[in-house]
Amino acid sequence: MKNFILSLDDLGNQEQGNIETLFAQANGFLGVRASLPIPVRASNPGSFVNGYYETHPIIYGETAYGYAKNHETIVKLFDFKSMEIKIGEEKLTKLMQQSIECDLMNGVLHECYEYTTVSGLQARLEIESFASHANRSVYAQKIKISPLNFSGPIEIKKKAKLIQPTGNAEFDPRVREASTKLLVNANQIVTPNSSLSLFTAFDSIDTKVQLDKNENFEFTQIYQMARQNHFETVEYEQLKAEQEVIFAEFWDKSDIQIEGDEELQKGIRVNLYHLFNSAGRDGKTNFAAKGLTGEGYEGHYFWDTEMYLLPFFIYTQPEIAKELLSYRLSILPQALERAKELDFDGALFAWRTQSGNETSAYYPAGTAQLHINGDIAYAFQLYDQVTGDEEFIAKSREVIYNTARFWLSYGFMSKRGFEIHEVTGPDEYTALVNNNYYTNKMAQNNLAYASELAERFSEHLYERENWKNASEAMFFGYDEARKLTKQDDSFLDKEPWPFNETPKENYPLLLHYHPMKIYKHQVLKQADTILAHMIYPEPEEQIKRDFDFYEPLTTHDSSLSRAIHGVVASRLGRPNEAYRFFADSATMDLSDMQGNAAHGIHAANMGGSWLGLVYGFAGLQIEGNELKFKNHLPEQITRLSFKVHFQGKSYHVDFKKQ
Amino acid sequence: MKNFILSLDDLGNQEQGNIETLFAQANGFLGVRASLPIPVRASNPGSFVNGYYETHPIIYGETAYGYAKNHETIVKLFDFKSMEIKIGEEKLTKLMQQSIECDLMNGVLHECYEYTTVSGLQARLEIESFASHANRSVYAQKIKISPLNFSGPIEIKKKAKLIQPTGNAEFDPRVREASTKLLVNANQIVTPNSSLSLFTAFDSIDTKVQLDKNENFEFTQIYQMARQNHFETVEYEQLKAEQEVIFAEFWDKSDIQIEGDEELQKGIRVNLYHLFNSAGRDGKTNFAAKGLTGEGYEGHYFWDTEMYLLPFFIYTQPEIAKELLSYRLSILPQALERAKELDFDGALFAWRTQSGNETSAYYPAGTAQLHINGDIAYAFQLYDQVTGDEEFIAKSREVIYNTARFWLSYGFMSKRGFEIHEVTGPDEYTALVNNNYYTNKMAQNNLAYASELAERFSEHLYERENWKNASEAMFFGYDEARKLTKQDDSFLDKEPWPFNETPKENYPLLLHYHPMKIYKHQVLKQADTILAHMIYPEPEEQIKRDFDFYEPLTTHDSSLSRAIHGVVASRLGRPNEAYRFFADSATMDLSDMQGNAAHGIHAANMGGSWLGLVYGFAGLQIEGNELKFKNHLPEQITRLSFKVHFQGKSYHVDFKKQ
Repeated sequence: MKNFILSLDDLGNQEQGNIETLFAQANGFLGVRASLPIPVRASNPGSFVNGYYETHPIIYGETAYGYAKNHETIVKLFDFKSMEIKIGEEKLTKLMQQSIECDLMNGVLHECYEYTTVSGLQARLEIESFASHANRSVYAQKIKISPLNFSGPIEIKKKAKLIQPTGNAEFDPRVREASTKLLVNANQIVTPNSSLSLFTAFDSIDTKVQLDKNENFEFTQIYQMARQNHFETVEYEQLKAEQEVIFAEFWDKSDIQIEGDEELQKGIRVNLYHLFNSAGRDGKTNFAAKGLTGEGYEGHYFWDTEMYLLPFFIYTQPEIAKELLSYRLSILPQALERAKELDFDGALFAWRTQSGNETSAYYPAGTAQLHINGDIAYAFQLYDQVTGDEEFIAKSREVIYNTARFWLSYGFMSKRGFEIHEVTGPDEYTALVNNNYYTNKMAQNNLAYASELAERFSEHLYERENWKNASEAMFFGYDEARKLTKQDDSFLDKEPWPFNETPKENYPLLLHYHPMKIYKHQVLKQADTILAHMIYPEPEEQIKRDFDFYEPLTTHDSSLSRAIHGVVASRLGRPNEAYRFFADSATMDLSDMQGNAAHGIHAANMGGSWLGLVYGFAGLQIEGNELKFKNHLPEQITRLSFKVHFQGKSYHVDFKKQ
Repeated sequence: MKNFILSLDDLGNQEQGNIETLFAQANGFLGVRASLPIPVRASNPGSFVNGYYETHPIIYGETAYGYAKNHETIVKLFDFKSMEIKIGEEKLTKLMQQSIECDLMNGVLHECYEYTTVSGLQARLEIESFASHANRSVYAQKIKISPLNFSGPIEIKKKAKLIQPTGNAEFDPRVREASTKLLVNANQIVTPNSSLSLFTAFDSIDTKVQLDKNENFEFTQIYQMARQNHFETVEYEQLKAEQEVIFAEFWDKSDIQIEGDEELQKGIRVNLYHLFNSAGRDGKTNFAAKGLTGEGYEGHYFWDTEMYLLPFFIYTQPEIAKELLSYRLSILPQALERAKELDFDGALFAWRTQSGNETSAYYPAGTAQLHINGDIAYAFQLYDQVTGDEEFIAKSREVIYNTARFWLSYGFMSKRGFEIHEVTGPDEYTALVNNNYYTNKMAQNNLAYASELAERFSEHLYERENWKNASEAMFFGYDEARKLTKQDDSFLDKEPWPFNETPKENYPLLLHYHPMKIYKHQVLKQADTILAHMIYPEPEEQIKRDFDFYEPLTTHDSSLSRAIHGVVASRLGRPNEAYRFFADSATMDLSDMQGNAAHGIHAANMGGSWLGLVYGFAGLQIEGNELKFKNHLPEQITRLSFKVHFQGKSYHVDFKKQ
């Protein structure tokens, strides 16, 4: 089971922040970073509850009508990890050795630390912990303390502590401080502005034991958090046994076996493990961009869920997919309200949110990413196609109708066709453009699917014809001379980015150049037209030309980029290129390729690595009502084996090198 | 001299805020709003010193590289107007009558108020005041108090009071609270963040007099403020006499006589009066968008100075024009720094500033208005052409070279020509576009002028040829089918704004619609291509087509719009239309057409009304090295007479209806 163990050696970058992220434990409801039990060096402890956020008014240097009103920042709750240990009168002050291993097979973390005091007294600390999937309110630890070179009294204090705001401001638009002042009343905490309650039931320990060198002291602690003040009595070993059963079932359905590359085998398993751990399960929460492992992007839900994570869940864990989609249905009222506020029909889903309200404080890279509407519709449709769950689609179809209504009122019919202006596509290095290809593709599909559903459910909606017509008349820009798909109306008119004059340390560009400088150049943060091509394939020659034009202009500054290029490269019969993209994607956080794994996992990329294998190397595509596969294995991978679920049946796919 | 008296009856909207703005007194260094001496109703007193601002860090909901760092907000200083008057134990609590007259001829304000106490004791208050142009540190008042229906003791207290912040937040991106906490030490005040000092020397009064019904009590007060702690002894009547001489000279050079429309005659004089009063004179300050009459736009200097105000000063008061241009030269270091920060060559002037640093907190309608560079170059060039002041141009030519350098590095050469992308033109209802016609025109001229100066001053600048080439290769979009000048690459592709569905109360659009909704439509806030046509005329047929296309799409939500349309309508031989635009422009603040005169005068429009008469009705244009005029008088105006200065000579222009 070597490949089911994540250990410190698997991390290319063993900075404390990265360790805390990669070994974080979560269960979809709560997440706990793997911070130091005895913080002898800088550590960023944190625990989070999915969708438990505080609001603060967004302050704008210069405001305008219709701007998002509030930040929603996930609350950095308790430090469940740290403890105080005194040997006689001395504290442990130096870390001599550590080993951390996460047993992916069982969802249990094993940590072992050897510390010493100033005078040289040594003790070992062994911690076993897990975020329970059997009872999602529980985070459990079993701790064993052993004197290594002394006998004597050991004092142990361990109690969950609320994390206080540090007031540190970092120049990085992708992160905001997540801790906040909370109202605490007995076992209830409340966020002062958003008025969200959380109840707690925590074990604590404060004891002094006398130990001989060959003895040890062991205790368990159960931390429970819940939205209701209702807690069950739980028992450590029983929860651990249940955890094992749940994970066995998870791996049975979702594991991917790769032969030929141990590192990538490990990488993909770590990714799938985190996907399973951070997905909301209650229909009221979703999947944060950083999962429940860090405070990056404030715990917000983005289109990442629909376009990068849901394919994995839909094909392997459809019941989780259903919960994630149910969340979107639950925030339809806010999306209807938002469209109205902006003076359009139907519903416009928030670009980034927890509550359902728009919280993007920079609309050109936020609200303007209208494709979120199309992404959501696409995910419902994929769920529909793959599961055939008619009942859920019937219940959710207002999501599809209302996103279609939005497109119809936001776009307009011109001589060129149905056009959609002043939007930002997935590529955030190009903003506020007309007829972004990806956006128009997603809108076209959204409109067509709405029309199809209205017909399927025999609804006499007067807009049905209009949806169909707009979808069929959708405009797509094309450069006839160069035979290129236009990313948007003006992209091909721009000056190429001066890559040759850009020093390596100036990436990601967003941290080193003003938006105007970036936007005015041909330069992409991430897959845009290429992502559209992945979802809605065009003739291979076209995709080839577009890939060869757009990919060299792509910085991959976004973690959402590489995996998609890998899938498309596979389909284009470029296995080496596909392999490199996939390798980057499979190990992105293990190698800290983006340089900010400390802020939390890059969840979308983790989902993307599944796409790289299943859509890419295994060539999965739905054609008509059938699943098709195609062997695109690169030479580095000798065997690829996984399961998918399709229309009530489970399929085991097993490709060997041809 | 009836038409040199501005009285309350001339105001279409006599709300207190408008009165305070229209009757404000200023001298280029300081300005004082005409607030109530006894504030029996809501009043917004304020005095300002040109360029005396406090900085505060701009807080962004989501920040990015290169954003402007600080707000610079003009300080609302002292209430010089209000006083406390007690009759016996009673206060004056009700205003019975008021008359306010500003003697435009002499630059003196006459106010008369009759108040009553609760028990019916009546007193008259007469105030004469002026902001001295002879000694710009001085604001002087002469106050006379007369009992009307009683004899008895009157207690008078009058002392300049620092205005305290109210903390009121208004939803209007065009205004921010101007008052701030100041450090006060004896006669020195200091802004805590920007560390700007101001010294004061104030008279105050605290006395009790016994008056008979037929007696009165009169006293003068001199308020002095200066950047240095150095004050002269001054005498009220002498300063008043000097004021008269200075204004006589001003009117001699700058008055415009209109026959046929008394209201417009009054309007244009009020406008010229405010222009003379609010222009900075020290080469270190400029002309705030609201002059020194209110806190709107935070006291910032914009392109308004170059494109709307400087033509008036250059042609009639070139010594003031020189001071305003000297200010731009003085902030060249900041503009060089800003270009560097954004990774471009040369200099980029701040879109809005006092210190010279960029303070625009919304770059799509701020920094992106790169045309500020071209506007500044244009104004230097106009000064050059009209005055022939070779010495000043020699001294200032680095401004022209460095703005040209900026264009060369920001734009790029393509197959289509020299293109300038990702800019916002004057029309702020369209943002971040490619090849804005106005911007490209101004850049073209900037580059050509730089090349010309380098030649004139025999400088061997290696860039000279590049400037010339870029200028000559400048790209301008043109719709061949419709024979229309393209405002930018994408404007003609957009959907027209649904004017028919827009209720009147939803103007200005910026307060009622999200920027995305506005930007994605064909709708203009103000003259854009039409402004370019005013400055660089094209064949009349072309201008006609463009005018007939763009004007109906223009909301004139900006006060900078109407005057320009008036000039162009004149030249197109549409006198009625021109007259309407001019009439709106001449009386914009008197009628409170924009609904926010309370925030301060619309200075650019005031300069625009001069353009309407001189460029429009009198058809002034420079051709080669000659001034040309053309009689475009509308039938409503029977005679138009004014002076302009050109290359050392003064010309008296006198047009009668043909």
